[in-house]
Amino acid sequence: MRKNFGAKPLLYPQPVFILAAYDASGTPNAMNAAWGGITEENEVTLCISAEHKTMRNILERKAFTVSMGTVEQMVACDYVGVVSGNETPDKVTRAGWHTEKSAFVDAPLICELPMAVECRLKSYDEDSCRLVGEVVNVCADESVLNDKGRVDPAKLRPIVFDAMNHAYLSPGEKVGDAFRDGLTLR
Amino acid sequence: MRKNFGAKPLLYPQPVFILAAYDASGTPNAMNAAWGGITEENEVTLCISAEHKTMRNILERKAFTVSMGTVEQMVACDYVGVVSGNETPDKVTRAGWHTEKSAFVDAPLICELPMAVECRLKSYDEDSCRLVGEVVNVCADESVLNDKGRVDPAKLRPIVFDAMNHAYLSPGEKVGDAFRDGLTLR
Repeated sequence: MRKNFGAKPLLYPQPVFILAAYDASGTPNAMNAAWGGITEENEVTLCISAEHKTMRNILERKAFTVSMGTVEQMVACDYVGVVSGNETPDKVTRAGWHTEKSAFVDAPLICELPMAVECRLKSYDEDSCRLVGEVVNVCADESVLNDKGRVDPAKLRPIVFDAMNHAYLSPGEKVGDAFRDGLTLR
Repeated sequence: MRKNFGAKPLLYPQPVFILAAYDASGTPNAMNAAWGGITEENEVTLCISAEHKTMRNILERKAFTVSMGTVEQMVACDYVGVVSGNETPDKVTRAGWHTEKSAFVDAPLICELPMAVECRLKSYDEDSCRLVGEVVNVCADESVLNDKGRVDPAKLRPIVFDAMNHAYLSPGEKVGDAFRDGLTLR
């Protein structure tokens, strides 16, 4: 027997993406976004309403970064999702974060978040809140790589947003390989 | 020191969404999609190329469901991502799955996947592969609910796709509450 929840924005897993962008004077701002994902080989789409300080920054500088929220930085990630940069211009500093400029786009990388996707603004529609970014580069700190030089989720520990219970979840163990020969199933 | 991976579709977490739709004759098909997410209060956006049998079905019937892939059904979820319904029309049956028609949209629910989002087709653009669905209902089997009547991720066990290592991860423990008063951070 299934329970119906109505038309709600509920999926599992939902991400904890930390968007960051500079304003006109070069001050970085950051926000927490759970709505969005990859929409092409080199494209991300997010739903960000126009009143967000970070959204205004993105329109100003035509670039942004998307860092993965982590278990280690969970409290700070939650903080930048609760507090607005419109009222708290030094929000990033108050979160305890430091930034450096991306080598690829005109946007800040957050030093405390070891993996990020660096994007150029592709389009933004204020009515639908649809922000589309062209992925220019993905970067990850060597401290979160495995011996093959790829990101190790057990080291990165990206958090998952549980929208139904307003909670954050840690990532779990590897449970299997993807892209196995499906024909072996039957 | 950060390593640069170039312009790649890499984010954590990525979902394992199982899309399902009927063809003209009422045969269900299903596929595995990791690219997409919520893009509005009642909207999902996914990147699905036009040659997929399930995509053709969605255009035919103007509806689809998005079920959450689970640890329990991981092998079947991987299978429907590897095998094409164009060559294997009984793919859903071969995956070991049974379907019932959604009460809200003209699309199948997969009985073995206990949580799904039921969508009407809103738009599809073949060039960008952008599929937009209006969320009409979210449903979950009572067996995966907690005592508050909400989905319990520890019971649902939605899998996470690790795109960098071609692996599936289990969901982990709750690590904290979201939307705390951020001002308590500093």
